Amino acid sequence: MRCLVADGRIDYDGSQIGSLWAYARFGIQEDSIVCFRGSCNIPLEHMVDLEDKINREHIESPDMLHFIVEHFDEPSLRVAYARQRLLACIAGETLKDMGFLINRSGDDLFFKGQKLSISIASTSAVSCKIHFGMNVECEGYMSLGKMGVKDPYGVMKRIGERYAAEYDDMGRDMRKSRPLEVFVQ
Amino acid sequence: MRCLVADGRIDYDGSQIGSLWAYARFGIQEDSIVCFRGSCNIPLEHMVDLEDKINREHIESPDMLHFIVEHFDEPSLRVAYARQRLLACIAGETLKDMGFLINRSGDDLFFKGQKLSISIASTSAVSCKIHFGMNVECEGYMSLGKMGVKDPYGVMKRIGERYAAEYDDMGRDMRKSRPLEVFVQ
Amino acid sequence: MRCLVADGRIDYDGSQIGSLWAYARFGIQEDSIVCFRGSCNIPLEHMVDLEDKINREHIESPDMLHFIVEHFDEPSLRVAYARQRLLACIAGETLKDMGFLINRSGDDLFFKGQKLSISIASTSAVSCKIHFGMNVECEGYMSLGKMGVKDPYGVMKRIGERYAAEYDDMGRDMRKSRPLEVFVQ
Amino acid sequence: MRCLVADGRIDYDGSQIGSLWAYARFGIQEDSIVCFRGSCNIPLEHMVDLEDKINREHIESPDMLHFIVEHFDEPSLRVAYARQRLLACIAGETLKDMGFLINRSGDDLFFKGQKLSISIASTSAVSCKIHFGMNVECEGYMSLGKMGVKDPYGVMKRIGERYAAEYDDMGRDMRKSRPLEVFVQ
Amino acid sequence: MRCLVADGRIDYDGSQIGSLWAYARFGIQEDSIVCFRGSCNIPLEHMVDLEDKINREHIESPDMLHFIVEHFDEPSLRVAYARQRLLACIAGETLKDMGFLINRSGDDLFFKGQKLSISIASTSAVSCKIHFGMNVECEGYMSLGKMGVKDPYGVMKRIGERYAAEYDDMGRDMRKSRPLEVFVQ
Amino acid sequence: MRCLVADGRIDYDGSQIGSLWAYARFGIQEDSIVCFRGSCNIPLEHMVDLEDKINREHIESPDMLHFIVEHFDEPSLRVAYARQRLLACIAGETLKDMGFLINRSGDDLFFKGQKLSISIASTSAVSCKIHFGMNVECEGYMSLGKMGVKDPYGVMKRIGERYAAEYDDMGRDMRKSRPLEVFVQ
Repeated sequence: MRCLVADGRIDYDGSQIGSLWAYARFGIQEDSIVCFRGSCNIPLEHMVDLEDKINREHIESPDMLHFIVEHFDEPSLRVAYARQRLLACIAGETLKDMGFLINRSGDDLFFKGQKLSISIASTSAVSCKIHFGMNVECEGYMSLGKMGVKDPYGVMKRIGERYAAEYDDMGRDMRKSRPLEVFVQ
Repeated sequence: MRCLVADGRIDYDGSQIGSLWAYARFGIQEDSIVCFRGSCNIPLEHMVDLEDKINREHIESPDMLHFIVEHFDEPSLRVAYARQRLLACIAGETLKDMGFLINRSGDDLFFKGQKLSISIASTSAVSCKIHFGMNVECEGYMSLGKMGVKDPYGVMKRIGERYAAEYDDMGRDMRKSRPLEVFVQ
Repeated sequence: MRCLVADGRIDYDGSQIGSLWAYARFGIQEDSIVCFRGSCNIPLEHMVDLEDKINREHIESPDMLHFIVEHFDEPSLRVAYARQRLLACIAGETLKDMGFLINRSGDDLFFKGQKLSISIASTSAVSCKIHFGMNVECEGYMSLGKMGVKDPYGVMKRIGERYAAEYDDMGRDMRKSRPLEVFVQ
Repeated sequence: MRCLVADGRIDYDGSQIGSLWAYARFGIQEDSIVCFRGSCNIPLEHMVDLEDKINREHIESPDMLHFIVEHFDEPSLRVAYARQRLLACIAGETLKDMGFLINRSGDDLFFKGQKLSISIASTSAVSCKIHFGMNVECEGYMSLGKMGVKDPYGVMKRIGERYAAEYDDMGRDMRKSRPLEVFVQ
Repeated sequence: MRCLVADGRIDYDGSQIGSLWAYARFGIQEDSIVCFRGSCNIPLEHMVDLEDKINREHIESPDMLHFIVEHFDEPSLRVAYARQRLLACIAGETLKDMGFLINRSGDDLFFKGQKLSISIASTSAVSCKIHFGMNVECEGYMSLGKMGVKDPYGVMKRIGERYAAEYDDMGRDMRKSRPLEVFVQ
Repeated sequence: MRCLVADGRIDYDGSQIGSLWAYARFGIQEDSIVCFRGSCNIPLEHMVDLEDKINREHIESPDMLHFIVEHFDEPSLRVAYARQRLLACIAGETLKDMGFLINRSGDDLFFKGQKLSISIASTSAVSCKIHFGMNVECEGYMSLGKMGVKDPYGVMKRIGERYAAEYDDMGRDMRKSRPLEVFVQ
């Protein structure tokens, strides 16, 4: 799969979670993870998480790292959510490798008990998509800034590349495992 | 899903990766993670990884923690491998929470550059299955023993319960996300 | 799966067939059958059955028992329709157990040659849904009222619980059957 | 789908549940329900239900009506089991239409509290299959003989034809229902 | 599957690619290929191919043969595109049988280096659909008119019938092939 | 996907249709088409086509071009058969481009009314596979030799490369098409 680290800012407004955004924006037709930096401001009509929508939660941050994943191989919610968790793990591992004691709970990362990230996953008839965002600056929440991370761009790039490598590695493993028999007493 | 921590030793010989083992052995009909301790000795005919089979690698350990996951919800290799990676992440996170600087590469855990674990995933027409094993003692490899872990049973239980909780949490998230539209320019 | 028998009236207007209604209305994230009593009045834009839409049939009843089923396990039309028929069978069996000679034809129930029920099933990218409704009162059609049923609430509850039990029972059977070989001459 | 009522006796030994039996035996390539009369005697190695296998239950009857259903449209356990229940409902309805107060519990039919039928469903990579059998004579169980049914062949034919008609009817309903939107608050 | 050759002109405006068009227009509930003649003029909002949409390409022809295929058996993009290519092959073979040296590149047919056809495929939650169109007259492109084809109606009918026969033939082949084992060294 | 043209002879005995053969033999983990030349001799136990098996047809040729396709993306019989037909089309087009008036009927190629090729497709739980073979020499059948083809190796290479290119092209098309709405009257 392709990892694209976008030049320049892109502000996340929820439209990027739509299917085929990477194609419409960058001409990418492969499975992809697009990484970019920008603000986050999701109007109600673009919300995918109905819980947030019902509670009319406002999701907003002036500066975030964003990861938009799109997979065309199997448009299944189960695949989408397992991969979303994996992306959260990878983001956490990347920060731990830098020495931060990150905790993960489901799709959320925490540092010193404060929430650092947001995420959603879903599916259309053509693909599954994941959005994962980490605060660079955000009042009232943990952020890479408060943690003293000097190189958010480098963190973003490492997470994107590691996810892409993980996906390719899973693809190889899949293609050397025989199907299973049934356990017989 | 159900987490069962088995009493007594069970020696892993590769038959446990077969579909419906948890039912035949414990009468479990739900999705499950069965955790047990025992040796590991996989004869060639039970090997699922053809790479190992071709190389006639002998997989053997006198004492391991074993995790056997079975999911009936979608017998897909993509689901199986994404969840296998997630189980490896969870095992790594559990050890990191104890203060060990674990590295994960795909489905393998490493400590001080030495391999600590083995894993395989696959699927039959009725379910997907994952085996994940961590050495308690094993010459030539890293092991919980060498790391000085005093309570392998407690580690096993925490990993099993955390995986089951993660699965249930993904199930809930799936059921509150609306399907996606297409990004329109 | 969960069976919820709603307190108070809910008037069916076709919006309840939408995916995630049970979540948005009751916070239910499991597979569910929600049972309620209320009128039925489906405007053209909410019609799922194109035959009715093309014929501009007006579907209306002042008082019905409604059953809204949602399953997240496999968003397939074949699964949706097989389960819809099963729900119609269960509704028929429940009335037969009360001594009524009900006839079923596809998804419709009849008593003394008059139609008693309406139903539709369909699927979105996230779930499959079924609506099944039985007249409590309805001019020009058979109704539980005309049949002399004194306790429509009890009937509603029994049908909902029986469907949920049936679904759980199928789930258990699925998880103890080995996959099939091919018949070899 | 095709309904074939076989001439002459066929003794059921569990091999008929294998995929493609109807093709190998009768040259049938469509989805089919094959109805026949004969004894039932399933050796352990042909048992699909692991519960019976584990308990080493002997399934035997000197004279039964058998129904073997094969569907190629979606080899899914969920589809297989929903249709199996539907076949049990249809068998029950057919007997009720003859005036017998049949009770159904899951895939089993009962008359006067005694079990009349057996059934199993499963799937291979190419199709799903159902076996449903009703005793014509069987010591220790209810049977059509004890119920005084004079025309088992006619019953068999009506059940087979009704199942085939139901399947075709579901196919038509599926092809006139639009996909669902999400319920929006 | 059913092949319908429509009487009279139908002008293609992109709405015909919608799911269930054949049902809404002709009452067809089977898998179908509907063949008709008419102009082609696709407004931006009906475009399925985002490349055309992004480039704001105007797709227009005064006179075309159109083929609208709908399959309900498996709403998968992979199935849709493999069958689209097959339809392009069949159209090419039909013209070659008439002595024309047609070249096919993906879903496009060429004669003397000039493009003769357009095509798109996609899927909704209920079915997959294909549109394939061949110019009868079209300035700036190859057309059956320029090729000297006298009987466009006959060509249309042969292509439609051949596709339907091919589909039925694949269905039969599928139902006599056993599933595969794994190659074992 | 990868196209491998094997050096040296490989005799086809039906084991090559097994899943993961390309991996076990050549270490290939991608979707692949492996092209090779050798005899063809399929013992009954390796036959996938039950019709041949039932008729105890002997499939034998001293010298053939063989194509073994394996796709991991969707183990569905419908995908397998649509792609098998496409491979037959591509083989036919390649020969037509050389000036031969080839006829295709389903998965068979004919020249001057005589059969030139054999083919089968099927699926396991991990992949779908296609075998397509064309006689280089074969008594009683058409062959490239009788047709006067001088460079069977070149033909083999062109067919393999064209199929791989077609597959990649379909993959790109899939990833720029939006999902469909329903046709609304």
